[in-house]
Amino acid sequence: MRLGYLGPEGTFSEQAAILYAPEADFVPYPSIRGVAEAVGAREIDQGVVPIENSLHGSVIDVLDFLIRTDRTRIKYELAIPIEQCLILAPGAGRRAVEVIYSHPQALGQCQNFLAGEFPDVELVASLSTAGSVTDMLESDRPAAAIAPFRAAEIHGAEVAERGIQDNRSNVTRFVALAPEDSSPTGHDKTSLAFWYASDAPGTLYETLGIFSTRGINLTKIESRPTGESLGEYVFLVDIEGHRLDAIVAGALEELSKQTSELKIFGSYPMLRDETA
Amino acid sequence: MRLGYLGPEGTFSEQAAILYAPEADFVPYPSIRGVAEAVGAREIDQGVVPIENSLHGSVIDVLDFLIRTDRTRIKYELAIPIEQCLILAPGAGRRAVEVIYSHPQALGQCQNFLAGEFPDVELVASLSTAGSVTDMLESDRPAAAIAPFRAAEIHGAEVAERGIQDNRSNVTRFVALAPEDSSPTGHDKTSLAFWYASDAPGTLYETLGIFSTRGINLTKIESRPTGESLGEYVFLVDIEGHRLDAIVAGALEELSKQTSELKIFGSYPMLRDETA
Repeated sequence: MRLGYLGPEGTFSEQAAILYAPEADFVPYPSIRGVAEAVGAREIDQGVVPIENSLHGSVIDVLDFLIRTDRTRIKYELAIPIEQCLILAPGAGRRAVEVIYSHPQALGQCQNFLAGEFPDVELVASLSTAGSVTDMLESDRPAAAIAPFRAAEIHGAEVAERGIQDNRSNVTRFVALAPEDSSPTGHDKTSLAFWYASDAPGTLYETLGIFSTRGINLTKIESRPTGESLGEYVFLVDIEGHRLDAIVAGALEELSKQTSELKIFGSYPMLRDETA
Repeated sequence: MRLGYLGPEGTFSEQAAILYAPEADFVPYPSIRGVAEAVGAREIDQGVVPIENSLHGSVIDVLDFLIRTDRTRIKYELAIPIEQCLILAPGAGRRAVEVIYSHPQALGQCQNFLAGEFPDVELVASLSTAGSVTDMLESDRPAAAIAPFRAAEIHGAEVAERGIQDNRSNVTRFVALAPEDSSPTGHDKTSLAFWYASDAPGTLYETLGIFSTRGINLTKIESRPTGESLGEYVFLVDIEGHRLDAIVAGALEELSKQTSELKIFGSYPMLRDETA
């Protein structure tokens, strides 16, 4: 299988891709949209992209893409713990460090650590966390990088400390995009988007009644302005159950009558921790 | 008035702060959370922070802060168009450019432009869009920066082209945080958060019924995992109307009985374009 992901090597996106399909042929793309479009164009068999906020670009791109396409579905979901590491050149000492490289948002995620441990060190931006390891290795001055564990591994650098981000329980969700979604497993989730021709008070309430009366749980709901005019919204909803389950299928049929547009992104196995 | 914002000078956050209160004493902070905490600590009178996805850090920080504090409210809302510019040193030629500096996410926002106009140019990361103008001016090689118009103005650089981001209608919302929210104007919005002790199907549906039966429109709804355990959610909702309006006040009173926690972030004038 040819599996696309948001490159370069050594980012959390690559980590998610490896976790999803360790034996795949990995194909890095420079943007989230690039991965999604490559699945649509059948350049690759599947692609792994972040579906929640991440360092690596706009997740809105994925949702926009899914809303507009009929050729790509969500097939799988993964949760990757975001663990930043302090990385040094082999044999280098932590005390000598004069400059620290990373993606600006990763530097932001480690503000408390940096203020406490390296208050006087110069912070320098890199294009990606993985790229910061190369920048650190090529630095003229004693340097460190902040990047995922895997980036140190790839470049033969040393992890001086793990889990240095301020928020210890930071998890990012990724999805695998593919031409088809997954078959029912008995413990699934379905992602969908819908919108209305006009926004009357109570419209969303009536829609949620479709799920409530059937005992279908929502695991996510989000409204987003459509961009064209700020007064109109698309609703992004995840529900428990597979679109082929009889109860869910009935709900989706009723939903398609009530909304002016309904787009089913796909059904796929539910992550275990979500049922907690 | 002392008005905090997410620095440095020349970012969209500063632009929002200037639009909000042109006569204020502006105080830059290195992080979104820093601004919010300074309002809570009364170091500043008010602070302007992005409330939607932005280049400048995690917006979740603002919501987390608002959920945990009793000393800070949303007083105002602003929408700032995100317009990236190609910026050159005074008198420099666009054709000679060998390297382009910017925040990695701003480079990502201008991918189509860069691929079309500068396919062979080296891209180099800066800590902020505003910082990229300084990096460009100090560069040994012929360089450009991608940053807001205002950043060029501050540093005496030249704007070679405006609006080079791929998405032409990109708007980011900012809020002003203050000790108190705004008085009723007759055309207001109220932001709130609530959560339940347990997630039963239909709970959210019943909650939305409180608004629906009163004809109160929702302008935003979003569920977020609480982080501690992925199965529990906090709901972030914006409704039309001021918390002191009789109908809204009645709804909020019923809501506080039905949820295990209700937090009112504040009432403030509604942006005009939202009523479209």
